[in-house]
Amino acid sequence: MKTVKPLRNLIQSFEALPGIGPKTAERLAYYLLHVPQSDLDEFAHALDRLKKDTVLCTRCKAVSETDPCPVCSDSERVIDQILVVEQPLDVIAFEKTGKYKGLYHVLHGAISPLDNIGPDEIYLNELFERINVETKEIIVATNPTLEGEATAMFISKKIKSNGFADTVKISRLGVGLPNGAYLEFADEGTLIQAFEGRKSI
Amino acid sequence: MKTVKPLRNLIQSFEALPGIGPKTAERLAYYLLHVPQSDLDEFAHALDRLKKDTVLCTRCKAVSETDPCPVCSDSERVIDQILVVEQPLDVIAFEKTGKYKGLYHVLHGAISPLDNIGPDEIYLNELFERINVETKEIIVATNPTLEGEATAMFISKKIKSNGFADTVKISRLGVGLPNGAYLEFADEGTLIQAFEGRKSI
Repeated sequence: MKTVKPLRNLIQSFEALPGIGPKTAERLAYYLLHVPQSDLDEFAHALDRLKKDTVLCTRCKAVSETDPCPVCSDSERVIDQILVVEQPLDVIAFEKTGKYKGLYHVLHGAISPLDNIGPDEIYLNELFERINVETKEIIVATNPTLEGEATAMFISKKIKSNGFADTVKISRLGVGLPNGAYLEFADEGTLIQAFEGRKSI
Repeated sequence: MKTVKPLRNLIQSFEALPGIGPKTAERLAYYLLHVPQSDLDEFAHALDRLKKDTVLCTRCKAVSETDPCPVCSDSERVIDQILVVEQPLDVIAFEKTGKYKGLYHVLHGAISPLDNIGPDEIYLNELFERINVETKEIIVATNPTLEGEATAMFISKKIKSNGFADTVKISRLGVGLPNGAYLEFADEGTLIQAFEGRKSI
């Protein structure tokens, strides 16, 4: 006796998810055998509607139920600041801080030649089109990874070559030790940058 | 801007799964935004059909598309041996070895007073009803945990008190070091039992 087909189908769907291996997929599928059908219906409905009920905001490319998204259509936001992130989740992370009052731009990725992702594969041109004489600051909040840094460099060079070198300030998030971190586990690069970015107290 | 509702719904469904925390649930939901709708449809369909297209075999309680299940309806299986396991997945694990030719019985749990699971909450009575004069061996393959051992003891006592003490052999899986294990990481109980169960080579 092998795993029956209805279970196999579900195991395959779980296995296709990032970070879920065959053993975990099996365990999840068998677990769901014991939950009420109504829970399975809700799960299935959420999957079905996920893309149908969401759009990318035409301005900032954030995932939204409305277009433009709540941030872009909020007249209280500062429109001369644009914070550039790689993923939609990054917007949520920043919004949770409650500190940032400007606009966003979601690239949906980062430049990564090894993965065949060039500047045209992510929403970079759409970012450059948004920059105009009113724009005062572009905060490049891509991840401090090889790909994120390359993307940040590309954005910086492009904006300057587009003639905004004098009017637009381009900044990058501070790099240093995260709250609650232990010095001994920090990598060299982080330590050097934390040292260089030291502040008087 | 908070996470939009279609995403929140899906995040909640993922979070309800065992071993999936809020961060992983978020990551999975956002990941699915990038897959084709057809993949989402397949996933949703698999969830919808999971319980509708499966039954518990009335004899052995294994998860199956047919009743009786392929094992119970296979005339080549040895019907005087019943291997008792806690979960449907355990049957698959044994079938993968290809060595066992008898029947199974799936308890769907183990006796666990702390979790309010007594003998009547799992398929124990159904096991005892299957034992008759033809039965030669019951292999109790519940997990070597507190609950699994308690269940094994209960099964053993019950079968003997039912008058099968002389005709039915009750056995338990061997306990010892698993293949590829390191002695230094084995717990005391396992080591003692591996020592007692030593074999000449």
